[in-house]
Amino acid sequence: MRVLGIDPGLRNLGWGVIEVAGSRLTHVANGIVHSEGSDLAQRLLSLYDALKQIVADHAPDAAAVEQTFVNKDGAGTLKLGQARGIAMLVPAQAGLTVGEYAPNTVKKAVVGVGHADKGQIAHMVRFQLPGVELAGPDAADALAIAICHAHHLQSAGRLASAIRGAA
Amino acid sequence: MRVLGIDPGLRNLGWGVIEVAGSRLTHVANGIVHSEGSDLAQRLLSLYDALKQIVADHAPDAAAVEQTFVNKDGAGTLKLGQARGIAMLVPAQAGLTVGEYAPNTVKKAVVGVGHADKGQIAHMVRFQLPGVELAGPDAADALAIAICHAHHLQSAGRLASAIRGAA
Repeated sequence: MRVLGIDPGLRNLGWGVIEVAGSRLTHVANGIVHSEGSDLAQRLLSLYDALKQIVADHAPDAAAVEQTFVNKDGAGTLKLGQARGIAMLVPAQAGLTVGEYAPNTVKKAVVGVGHADKGQIAHMVRFQLPGVELAGPDAADALAIAICHAHHLQSAGRLASAIRGAA
Repeated sequence: MRVLGIDPGLRNLGWGVIEVAGSRLTHVANGIVHSEGSDLAQRLLSLYDALKQIVADHAPDAAAVEQTFVNKDGAGTLKLGQARGIAMLVPAQAGLTVGEYAPNTVKKAVVGVGHADKGQIAHMVRFQLPGVELAGPDAADALAIAICHAHHLQSAGRLASAIRGAA
């Protein structure tokens, strides 16, 4: 199963795809989309087109997006929300359910504690996906979100198996 | 020329289309899209599909979206941003430039003052678009945004003519 993780942002949108086979995780691809265009609508359209291409190229089976709204100002939160709307729309258009995880949940899943810095996240992403070359911190965060979602799906799968076994 | 105005919201997205011929404005259509779906991604997808249909049905030549971020809480602003991202994406996909207006600018254009309530806006929209039946306050706001954009385009047109005339 392939999992797409997205760290949404209007200026820099990080993305990462991993392959999940049982408890084994493998890196597939990661990158950062820089929105282009003279105005906001054009920038959102460039994010949309780039994400559509990523989904077409890597055909993920599941997707997850970081759930952040802790911004100092309303304008920043609104910008993030706009990018996040696109990040959730594109996988939904491909028929995928889209998981949402708070940053602390992602950090706990990948680093083991809820208050890790960007360096620790990149370190643990490299450890869990041997050989990965990270396009940047936003791409590392996106892979961390994909790893978190993979763990969540595995736990849900184990739970379903346990319930089936007990029935 | 047809102008589409959008008052973005995740729960209720207001829209309105007007025809602009010189200084004459005519109502074409208005409505409210209620997002449906069990999760956020599905709701954004339902907004997207509905807006795509509206743009296909009414073939606007220009579009404008309200620019709001004054929300009490970050979560509310993020939700609004997500809906707003979709509201800007769809006209951009149709090749339209998308105007953005602050609520006070819209109110000034339609009511004459920057601090008008919903009732005054609906009243002035009815006055400027005789015979209109409003689908609700969000649809009235969307028509007000379209009227504001029409005024802006007319001023820009007059300015361009004046510059051409002076050249």
